[in-house]
Amino acid sequence: MKIILVGASGTIGQAVLSELGSRHDIVRVGRSSGDVRVDIRDSDSIRQLFAKVGSFDALVSTAGQIEYGPLQDFTPERFGVGLSDKLMGQVNLVLLGLPHITDRGSFTLTTGLLNECPAPGAISASMVNGGLEGFVRGAAIELPRGVRINAVSPTITTETQASAAEMFRGVQPMPAAGVALGYARSVEGALTGRVFRMGWSRDGQ
Amino acid sequence: MKIILVGASGTIGQAVLSELGSRHDIVRVGRSSGDVRVDIRDSDSIRQLFAKVGSFDALVSTAGQIEYGPLQDFTPERFGVGLSDKLMGQVNLVLLGLPHITDRGSFTLTTGLLNECPAPGAISASMVNGGLEGFVRGAAIELPRGVRINAVSPTITTETQASAAEMFRGVQPMPAAGVALGYARSVEGALTGRVFRMGWSRDGQ
Repeated sequence: MKIILVGASGTIGQAVLSELGSRHDIVRVGRSSGDVRVDIRDSDSIRQLFAKVGSFDALVSTAGQIEYGPLQDFTPERFGVGLSDKLMGQVNLVLLGLPHITDRGSFTLTTGLLNECPAPGAISASMVNGGLEGFVRGAAIELPRGVRINAVSPTITTETQASAAEMFRGVQPMPAAGVALGYARSVEGALTGRVFRMGWSRDGQ
Repeated sequence: MKIILVGASGTIGQAVLSELGSRHDIVRVGRSSGDVRVDIRDSDSIRQLFAKVGSFDALVSTAGQIEYGPLQDFTPERFGVGLSDKLMGQVNLVLLGLPHITDRGSFTLTTGLLNECPAPGAISASMVNGGLEGFVRGAAIELPRGVRINAVSPTITTETQASAAEMFRGVQPMPAAGVALGYARSVEGALTGRVFRMGWSRDGQ
């Protein structure tokens, strides 16, 4: 398969590259590195990505920025970062990529633990991840030509645990290589409209 | 209790007014009717609402607009209606209302069945409802002074069933008076961070 990997240089992106790269051709995409550059907040930049890459069989996104901070410091503008980047950036990869994906191709987006298992300072992540999971369930029943869509919801990774220790106290970290299996399950499996929750303890609801 | 009801003239809003009005003082708020008017897309309008109403014990929102249509016709602008109205409009009622709510007061927002049980043409509702439910879970653990927050997720109501019949084929409608019980449970109960899914058949996941 020809797979577009948006966010290829991130911790999870690199693990997805290792997992899928041995079996497939990966087009590495990033904001400031990779085979092709993209700013997912900018629809024109996304259109240019697909014009350059042409037809593809799967798109995996491990990209998306969000602001963090206490609820009482949050403003509509700070929520807007997550809404325009991690949420609508990934949604627009689907909407604008749809004309270019092959029949029975797949989209795989990234949400995260903070939807069902919130933490202080992560209100925007809870909102954005919830919105993405709703989008994936809704899109799965409307995509044409057998095109599938899933999300992977990673727990904190062993590699990034130190940088977010306070937010994830008591959460069992998982190596990024383990999280990457969720993307393989989405791309190489047959399911659609699913959220693959990767992690050993996801008792958050 | 002094309860602000945003969306008081809608089908569910009227049922909430009947349910809670006999036991509490309700300030009816709407876009074009009610004791006070508000445009929830406009932060300044929301600020004026709270300046007029002053201190309150609970806020219930049954308001929020969304665009409907096939996924392939959707644009970022059409998603923007739901994001700025039903999602951020309700979120801003919480953020801007927080300085005015009494200790141990409560916010109750409205999501909907289409999050976990999507339908063709309702992709924006799936996204917005998912985002709202994430926000409610996240906000519940950050709100100060014992202030609580919940969401009610209504199924289709008997009163509005005819106008949305195709979208809700096979879904058992519920009278708005039944849906309104979820708002009473949120306002007059003690739970926080919950989504009260109102309806007889919610086997959508």
